Amino acid sequence: MEYLVILGVTGSIGQQTLEVVRQHPDKFKILGVSAARNIKQLEIVINEFEPAYVTVLEAETAELLKGKYPTITFFSGEKGLETLATIQGTTKLVNALIGFVGLKPTLAAIKAGINIALANKETLVAAGEIVSQLALKHQVTIIPIDSEHSAIFQCLKGNLNKEVKKIVLTASGGSFRDKSRAELKAVTVQEALKHPNWTMGAKITIDSATMMNKGLEVIEAHHLFQIPYQNIEVILHPESIIHSLVEFVDNSWLAQLGSADMMVPIQYALTYPKRFPLEIQEKLDLIKQKSLNFQAMSFERFPLLKLAYEVGLKGGNLPAIMNGANEAAVALFLEEKISFLMIEKLVKKTTTELEYLRTPSLKEIIASDQRARDYVYQLAKEH
Amino acid sequence: MEYLVILGVTGSIGQQTLEVVRQHPDKFKILGVSAARNIKQLEIVINEFEPAYVTVLEAETAELLKGKYPTITFFSGEKGLETLATIQGTTKLVNALIGFVGLKPTLAAIKAGINIALANKETLVAAGEIVSQLALKHQVTIIPIDSEHSAIFQCLKGNLNKEVKKIVLTASGGSFRDKSRAELKAVTVQEALKHPNWTMGAKITIDSATMMNKGLEVIEAHHLFQIPYQNIEVILHPESIIHSLVEFVDNSWLAQLGSADMMVPIQYALTYPKRFPLEIQEKLDLIKQKSLNFQAMSFERFPLLKLAYEVGLKGGNLPAIMNGANEAAVALFLEEKISFLMIEKLVKKTTTELEYLRTPSLKEIIASDQRARDYVYQLAKEH
Repeated sequence: MEYLVILGVTGSIGQQTLEVVRQHPDKFKILGVSAARNIKQLEIVINEFEPAYVTVLEAETAELLKGKYPTITFFSGEKGLETLATIQGTTKLVNALIGFVGLKPTLAAIKAGINIALANKETLVAAGEIVSQLALKHQVTIIPIDSEHSAIFQCLKGNLNKEVKKIVLTASGGSFRDKSRAELKAVTVQEALKHPNWTMGAKITIDSATMMNKGLEVIEAHHLFQIPYQNIEVILHPESIIHSLVEFVDNSWLAQLGSADMMVPIQYALTYPKRFPLEIQEKLDLIKQKSLNFQAMSFERFPLLKLAYEVGLKGGNLPAIMNGANEAAVALFLEEKISFLMIEKLVKKTTTELEYLRTPSLKEIIASDQRARDYVYQLAKEH
Repeated sequence: MEYLVILGVTGSIGQQTLEVVRQHPDKFKILGVSAARNIKQLEIVINEFEPAYVTVLEAETAELLKGKYPTITFFSGEKGLETLATIQGTTKLVNALIGFVGLKPTLAAIKAGINIALANKETLVAAGEIVSQLALKHQVTIIPIDSEHSAIFQCLKGNLNKEVKKIVLTASGGSFRDKSRAELKAVTVQEALKHPNWTMGAKITIDSATMMNKGLEVIEAHHLFQIPYQNIEVILHPESIIHSLVEFVDNSWLAQLGSADMMVPIQYALTYPKRFPLEIQEKLDLIKQKSLNFQAMSFERFPLLKLAYEVGLKGGNLPAIMNGANEAAVALFLEEKISFLMIEKLVKKTTTELEYLRTPSLKEIIASDQRARDYVYQLAKEH
């Protein structure tokens, strides 16, 4: 039996994690969950899965819920997430939080020796060095939930890191893949939220359209698999059937394939190193699929991907700055306060102009993230 | 250091094995080689690699060579192959013999506890049950050299057999994939030998055109990976870039990809479970490749594939009969004594008409093979 704690249970990944758990009631028990503001959905989860521990964003909400569910222990806020991430008896923490807020609970879980199924890529982007070293020290396994990284993780199984020549992340191209840069000027939030292949949360769907998502994934892959940036490539693959590939030193390639269903990487992260049966809505049928296509990625078309490579290579606090700036800019775009192309401008400007620290402490990383957000809001106001 | 014995060193796989060995002189030493009749090529091998043991087909040839190379121990004939396959100090036997003749040396090597890199698929087709059980008993690993089986072998690494939902072998479609059955009536040997993707020996190239090759591979895969026939599929993939795929119970697929270069699976069979760097002529470039295509396989278009499934399911001495009949029929076609479509007819007729034994001994398998060949020659004569 695996005893799970799910951070971000009301989000897209959180909900799909529950669907996996539903299919294997004899294998998984949910010990704790967290939700920020979607209390209605949270209560549905509480009633169905009866977790012993629950964290919400606001202390007031926690108090209210305590009255309603007297047998459950409630926590609140950032501290509450960290407490939930270190509940004794947890065998796997599913970190499905969105954004930088996922970092501290990850670090707390690692220190508590709890293995992590990680959907929160910002954790590794902002503090990859610190997280990797800590995981190594505490012998904690971080199993990626991202479809690309799960693909690489599956392809690497049974092979040695030094046998890898390169890893190739596939990118669908996002909602605007058929638009030129000129055509991007007038796109709306609604248009940006229509991903061609995947049903995902709003933030990651916008990140797919700017290709920032793939940039974050490149940095994440670097830390997860300890592969140098020059050995990480991105290729356009419109169908999103091949989720990523590994080329080995002997010119043999392995690829992981499947339909665009996040339940597959979620379950793999929960069952690793085993595989359990899984029912999904649409299974891959290569004959119906007919063809898989590939095109070269363009740094000119997607400047944020180029930026991510540069930022990853320089390291230090730059990934945290880029990530923080991006979160703020995407939030502004979703609130229709800035244009789509302004996301790129704000992220690039912030990354260039804020102070670079080569070997930041965790505190400095957190401060860099905050400065980046503030800077983006300030730039947007001035604009 | 791996000490290799290569059976069939002058053939296509044998020669490419030497090319792999040339790239890693510090990792491989050739202890022994065999050749049937291509003595000119054999002498080139002897002079370059200085093996201590050599087997040739004819006793006379062995005598002649003894005079010329006094430090080498020579053997001849079938017995000579078995002796060579069990040379003490061998760490891996490369069985690159063509046809049924590869069976006895494989069995001899297994009994001697020598791991086998197997290119000779007839070994597993004709006597799969016996070979698998013997390998299990002597804890010998059989590593496939065939590109499809090497692909499956690589995809299965680190995963459990019971986690497999199905394996999918890819087929290029062979030299006549764009011809209808009506158009096959007048095709020539020369046309049949032009494989669209792979440069291989004559026999296997004809087998690709009739799809018998894929049928033999299905039976081989069944025995190698202990997968039921209903979980083995064949799909047309004209580019031969994806060499085969595995679908797991969680709907995750793994595929092995690469350019059409046999040196990759050959080296993997030699270095397994490790991977060494390898230089090959043409590396896979997915962007240049642009697209990978898939079509359903047709049993009507390729009746020998259908026959192979039926024969595999029934088992007993039928696979040996089908394989023996096919070897004889292909030989007749290559000698331009029968038409291309006659291969199918002779194989089918022989498989249907000869006596079926449910649990044949090795001796009965060998006899069934011989009867099948004789029957094909007799049918061809009567025709």
